[in-house]
Amino acid sequence: MDGMDEDTMAPQNFLYGCKLESGKDIVFNPEDDDFEHQLDLRMACVDATTKDELHVVEVEGQDEEGQKVKAVLASLKPSTLPSVCLGGFTITPPAVFRLKAGSGPIHISGQHLVIMEGDKSFDDGEEEEEE
Amino acid sequence: MDGMDEDTMAPQNFLYGCKLESGKDIVFNPEDDDFEHQLDLRMACVDATTKDELHVVEVEGQDEEGQKVKAVLASLKPSTLPSVCLGGFTITPPAVFRLKAGSGPIHISGQHLVIMEGDKSFDDGEEEEEE
Amino acid sequence: MDGMDEDTMAPQNFLYGCKLESGKDIVFNPEDDDFEHQLDLRMACVDATTKDELHVVEVEGQDEEGQKVKAVLASLKPSTLPSVCLGGFTITPPAVFRLKAGSGPIHISGQHLVIMEGDKSFDDGEEEEEE
Amino acid sequence: MDGMDEDTMAPQNFLYGCKLESGKDIVFNPEDDDFEHQLDLRMACVDATTKDELHVVEVEGQDEEGQKVKAVLASLKPSTLPSVCLGGFTITPPAVFRLKAGSGPIHISGQHLVIMEGDKSFDDGEEEEEE
Amino acid sequence: MDGMDEDTMAPQNFLYGCKLESGKDIVFNPEDDDFEHQLDLRMACVDATTKDELHVVEVEGQDEEGQKVKAVLASLKPSTLPSVCLGGFTITPPAVFRLKAGSGPIHISGQHLVIMEGDKSFDDGEEEEEE
Repeated sequence: MDGMDEDTMAPQNFLYGCKLESGKDIVFNPEDDDFEHQLDLRMACVDATTKDELHVVEVEGQDEEGQKVKAVLASLKPSTLPSVCLGGFTITPPAVFRLKAGSGPIHISGQHLVIMEGDKSFDDGEEEEEE
Repeated sequence: MDGMDEDTMAPQNFLYGCKLESGKDIVFNPEDDDFEHQLDLRMACVDATTKDELHVVEVEGQDEEGQKVKAVLASLKPSTLPSVCLGGFTITPPAVFRLKAGSGPIHISGQHLVIMEGDKSFDDGEEEEEE
Repeated sequence: MDGMDEDTMAPQNFLYGCKLESGKDIVFNPEDDDFEHQLDLRMACVDATTKDELHVVEVEGQDEEGQKVKAVLASLKPSTLPSVCLGGFTITPPAVFRLKAGSGPIHISGQHLVIMEGDKSFDDGEEEEEE
Repeated sequence: MDGMDEDTMAPQNFLYGCKLESGKDIVFNPEDDDFEHQLDLRMACVDATTKDELHVVEVEGQDEEGQKVKAVLASLKPSTLPSVCLGGFTITPPAVFRLKAGSGPIHISGQHLVIMEGDKSFDDGEEEEEE
Repeated sequence: MDGMDEDTMAPQNFLYGCKLESGKDIVFNPEDDDFEHQLDLRMACVDATTKDELHVVEVEGQDEEGQKVKAVLASLKPSTLPSVCLGGFTITPPAVFRLKAGSGPIHISGQHLVIMEGDKSFDDGEEEEEE
């Protein structure tokens, strides 16, 4: 009961950051390691080197039927809105981030959560503790 | 008890995105499939092609008496505020999104949550697990 | 125990929206119906018809001693900041919304939550389920 | 067990608002009344009478060792950013709010939560219910 | 059971604030004291003395493999966006904050949470209560 409680209450929290540039997809799809993974996106920000044009950040994921679906995460322009809070937008893998408009770079940051409980059986007795 | 715990703790999380244009309603009303559905709206964003005028996004849902109610989700203008966080605004179906002002496009994004627990009986023993 | 669990875990969620104009109070005070009510405010937005001046939105509620207290929810100007996230500002009735400055209209939106558990006895056996 | 459950699950929620002006400290330190108090800060906003200069709002509280620590809550300017969401910044008393820059007024708003559970014994049998 | 419940439900909440200036790293790495520490970041703000140029705030932490990873927290410019909500961005130590661009100062604020439950054994019977 103790162990189960720890599993469900305490996902491990890691820092996540990526840099989007025109024509370059960033994939979030951690290898199958018996854990559940998710991203809680926090911020989208321009860089000091980002050109002063509108940048539109797109994420591609899956809908209820397993079909690809695209959504817009943020629209930023250095001279108008250099950063925006994404408010904990939860992304489950597989997901792809890319610039739909603008040459970048645009920074995306957030938390990479690793969760042990789930629909998989833990037959190898590993014990990952939250740090 | 295990199963019930999983039902109530772990809604499935899918990506949701839609593109609003003038005069075109977007309906969110998943078919009755014994699950509960909700949208946690995260962001409203202009597109690179959006005209520089004020856009007002409206959502139509239901109030406590089952009557139609309208609410404004966001007001955006490319040169003033190209994106805004919606902070997890939870929408329960049926709901309709539309532009009250502006020609669009405006992108709305968030999480489509599918929840198994609820007021329906599960007599067919399906076992949907969180992915 | 099952029923109690449902009561405490699943408040019903309805859409809330109101339109504030100068000199017009908007009251949130649902009639006493054995349920608890609260508003989780999400967004404050200008309209396409809102004059380009600073608008200050005020809410009046109660403090710990039951005395009236006023607080500022948002300050918006169409050409500077046309919408702002209120981040789930929880308002318990009775509450009044009004414009402290500006002629409006300003739109306030959020979730109206109806909660069954609380300090009242449920002697009439009604069973409201989450939809 | 029922009573304890209510205590831990349902803090009472009151409206909090204060108005900061240059040279005037606002103290949040509710009297010791056997309850725990906290502020969940939601918004910082300029007023219609606020001069068009940068205003920096500071909060003073305590760190882990009980030492005074200062933090900046918000920087606002009427013509640039008239309001900002504070996202539920939780402040535990004693705390002091003041303007570090600017003459004000700046409005701070949020929720004053009163929590019964805690490290104190309830020997007088009071029963505060959530309203 | 009572004690364990208090441990897991009630992390202690302290105020956190730091001031970033060019070329000066700010480290968050509380000494090993049998507690878990985390930062819930709330706001990033310019100061009244901050030069009107784009400032980019970077945080360095660890990824799933224990490797160093950098992420951008916020991009601010006094005349464009003087403050931004970080939305509760959770940082686990060790972490370093620094300015990637701009001379500062930029203020970062949030909550320093101290959590007793965790993967360590409490053999010395200390009883830290939430204040």
